[in-house]
Amino acid sequence: MPKNDVELEFIETEINVRYAETDQMGIVYYANYLVWFEVGRVAWCKAKGFHYAEMESTDKRYLMVAEAHCRYKAPAFFEDDITVRTGLVRATDRVIHYCYQICNKSTGQLLATGETKHVVADMSLRPSRLPNRYRKYFGLPEVKITNYE
Amino acid sequence: MPKNDVELEFIETEINVRYAETDQMGIVYYANYLVWFEVGRVAWCKAKGFHYAEMESTDKRYLMVAEAHCRYKAPAFFEDDITVRTGLVRATDRVIHYCYQICNKSTGQLLATGETKHVVADMSLRPSRLPNRYRKYFGLPEVKITNYE
Amino acid sequence: MPKNDVELEFIETEINVRYAETDQMGIVYYANYLVWFEVGRVAWCKAKGFHYAEMESTDKRYLMVAEAHCRYKAPAFFEDDITVRTGLVRATDRVIHYCYQICNKSTGQLLATGETKHVVADMSLRPSRLPNRYRKYFGLPEVKITNYE
Amino acid sequence: MPKNDVELEFIETEINVRYAETDQMGIVYYANYLVWFEVGRVAWCKAKGFHYAEMESTDKRYLMVAEAHCRYKAPAFFEDDITVRTGLVRATDRVIHYCYQICNKSTGQLLATGETKHVVADMSLRPSRLPNRYRKYFGLPEVKITNYE
Repeated sequence: MPKNDVELEFIETEINVRYAETDQMGIVYYANYLVWFEVGRVAWCKAKGFHYAEMESTDKRYLMVAEAHCRYKAPAFFEDDITVRTGLVRATDRVIHYCYQICNKSTGQLLATGETKHVVADMSLRPSRLPNRYRKYFGLPEVKITNYE
Repeated sequence: MPKNDVELEFIETEINVRYAETDQMGIVYYANYLVWFEVGRVAWCKAKGFHYAEMESTDKRYLMVAEAHCRYKAPAFFEDDITVRTGLVRATDRVIHYCYQICNKSTGQLLATGETKHVVADMSLRPSRLPNRYRKYFGLPEVKITNYE
Repeated sequence: MPKNDVELEFIETEINVRYAETDQMGIVYYANYLVWFEVGRVAWCKAKGFHYAEMESTDKRYLMVAEAHCRYKAPAFFEDDITVRTGLVRATDRVIHYCYQICNKSTGQLLATGETKHVVADMSLRPSRLPNRYRKYFGLPEVKITNYE
Repeated sequence: MPKNDVELEFIETEINVRYAETDQMGIVYYANYLVWFEVGRVAWCKAKGFHYAEMESTDKRYLMVAEAHCRYKAPAFFEDDITVRTGLVRATDRVIHYCYQICNKSTGQLLATGETKHVVADMSLRPSRLPNRYRKYFGLPEVKITNYE
């Protein structure tokens, strides 16, 4: 059962809207919010104490996206300062579930909310498990030494 | 109530995966599926008999995205031929709801499914209504002449 | 005659490489350097005392790209901290010429150099002139009041 | 010495401008032309008889971009049909040099011209040589069996 948003710990990071991210409607193109979610996940990992880049390069595990959802409430504009708030909804050693809030930093207005679900995969993109040393970052109990990977 | 997928008429269009669309996992980056959904919508409009570009430039109406959802089932790779199948789930003169199937053209494998919801907006990005002459494309009954916009 | 790089004043801004910016070669896709140049230009404007967004929205002038050039010397990787250094090579009230250096912030290594040339355009994308109040930012002499726009 | 444009054989491919490719100026964002150049290169390889994807996956050789240049002559708009014309300027087994013409398909108007230079690299992104079996595609003489790679 996903925790209530109020209970969730959100990690914040900031971005400034790039010209490249706008479209001819004069607002940020909708697919770019998923890029911002990814920026939020990277910041979340860093805040927890590890680099996502290392999980890939050293431990050969990927967090493949299985599902993404975004609700757009108000547009974002070029040069706006944006706050990306990222929370961990739920994690097992096979599936990670994040949620996001995209806000205008100056006004505090909520621009979008979203969620992504990820499956842990190995280098061949087959389902795998979170390496033991990453379990603590996702709030999972340590596994005993007999549970070798 | 959304129609059953079986009843839906899907409009198909094809794309070839670009190098720019891949990421360092060696597969298509997840946000690009929303770009493909948009390519699908444009093809859907064309198949119905109008250009989305004209709805914007001539009639000053935009289909702003209010919600987007994608479920990723299998990865897409560089140079893959992709079929984007776009169906209209439901339409009013204020809200349009599309669904999508992304398939590998050669194998027929379903790679992803998705949905987007759009609100009709005017040039100031305020909620508006579909111009009368577009109603028929979305399966809406003609309005009588007394119902001026 | 473009000034020597040594004489140029460079404005610096920083970015962190996004996963979305990588490609299946495992490095940043080459077109993204032009996006970074744009981020550099926006930072340059801010450092000079104005917002590029305002030049568009308030003064209805655009800096349309007429030419872009990039030399790639070493790859950039996911999560790298990047320094974008932007300098003004030359400006008239019709043509603006910028140059860029892209460096790895941690190592200081020069990853790429580039240049862009822009023509001042009006809302109809026709050649125009820099509004008077922006001349000083580009090192151009003030025009006398009789030179009305 | 690069050949005259007139002598060059151009391979043509077509694309339709995506909404995602526009920016708030209402035209195609300048970095996307480099994506189109890449689409042109992939079409060129296919026309010559091989898949660039295979050169990477089977032969472990990459064509890393060393330089890119684009001159923008007229804007491209959403839903425009674009012709990308790609020619090989010069090739050695270490360096490949392409040129491009971007045209509006309906009007024939030249929108942009460009060039890219690539170095052949191995999986570690170190300078390498074109595998022998690809030499013919780039107009290079066959090497004798004694010239082992």
